[in-house]
Amino acid sequence: MLSTTERTRLRRAKHKAGTDRAELHDLLDEGLVCHLGVVVDGSPRVLPTGYGRIGDTLYLHGSTGARSLQAGGEVCVTVTLLDGIVMARSGFHHSVNHRSAMVFGTPRLVTDEQERWDGLRAITEQLAPGQWDAVRPPNAKEMAATRVLALSLEEASVKVRTGPPNDEESDHATPVWAGVQPVRTVFDPPVTDPALIHDLPAPEHVLARVTGG
Amino acid sequence: MLSTTERTRLRRAKHKAGTDRAELHDLLDEGLVCHLGVVVDGSPRVLPTGYGRIGDTLYLHGSTGARSLQAGGEVCVTVTLLDGIVMARSGFHHSVNHRSAMVFGTPRLVTDEQERWDGLRAITEQLAPGQWDAVRPPNAKEMAATRVLALSLEEASVKVRTGPPNDEESDHATPVWAGVQPVRTVFDPPVTDPALIHDLPAPEHVLARVTGG
Repeated sequence: MLSTTERTRLRRAKHKAGTDRAELHDLLDEGLVCHLGVVVDGSPRVLPTGYGRIGDTLYLHGSTGARSLQAGGEVCVTVTLLDGIVMARSGFHHSVNHRSAMVFGTPRLVTDEQERWDGLRAITEQLAPGQWDAVRPPNAKEMAATRVLALSLEEASVKVRTGPPNDEESDHATPVWAGVQPVRTVFDPPVTDPALIHDLPAPEHVLARVTGG
Repeated sequence: MLSTTERTRLRRAKHKAGTDRAELHDLLDEGLVCHLGVVVDGSPRVLPTGYGRIGDTLYLHGSTGARSLQAGGEVCVTVTLLDGIVMARSGFHHSVNHRSAMVFGTPRLVTDEQERWDGLRAITEQLAPGQWDAVRPPNAKEMAATRVLALSLEEASVKVRTGPPNDEESDHATPVWAGVQPVRTVFDPPVTDPALIHDLPAPEHVLARVTGG
């Protein structure tokens, strides 16, 4: 865990209904990449990769040759959003404000062409909202080269740490500053491909995402 | 992979010397958390957690009760830095500019008290540079409750994707914008713990890290 010494303050729950599921969805929708854990020859492997969500299904993709994306084995997909560095009055209570989701399950190889299409669309839109309808969609050759997997969100947990440090009472008298340094992911103004032969501005849906720079 | 369909353009190398090792170190030093992959009862588990580096050793920590941090099993530690969203002229070539490191190995349980101390210092300083010397160090009880593991960086790889999209030549005539939206992690001005009873400003080493807000 981000700080296993503070695990009692992390909320752990199998998500079953209502509010919790909305929280899981919101967290997944805010992320950009996940870390996909697989077991290969008995050893763990953790790969950063894109993903997309439709309802209670997470979609993953890869080339048909990727060994890490063979269907049949269990996976763990973790999405982590960092919100701040927690600076306590003691080294022990330093921590990280974050939201993370872990999804466990055995992915299903998607074979239905419509679902494959929808899954790839969700993965692209997760990274670059608005782009799917703006660009050339996959052709038959590209579709054939791509494997799409579906992972149910049935077995998932969300962990959240928020707020100031959780120092020992006995440390409060110590004249040491304590607090949180917020951490954010920002999108800077887009940089046009130097190879673009048309005089085109970045589209509105790209400019609308800019939060930095 | 962030886009396994573009894996040929990712640099894959077992790091053996010189420049590559410096690149691995720089990447690890820039990260805030890693994703730790372990195998529990045959199933993969991926946990976000802090880490620190001293030379060619990565340190991890957790409570003595944490099952994921039992020594003896192989792990995969992945650190991913996102640099940009690659928006191509086709959905297929959408990708992510990123730098990621994967480290494989069987961690060693650290028992030497000086190395345990140095490892915990490195983990704290990774998250919050300058804090270790500013705050109360761990006491005997806290040290006893903490497990420290050391993972050699001997078996590690770095993958990097940079630059504009890699579209098909046949798509260049299409009048569609293409480019990269840079992504950055920023640190906002610190928020003082409301429970701080002293009138203390945030220290210089915290303020020096502010890049946003």
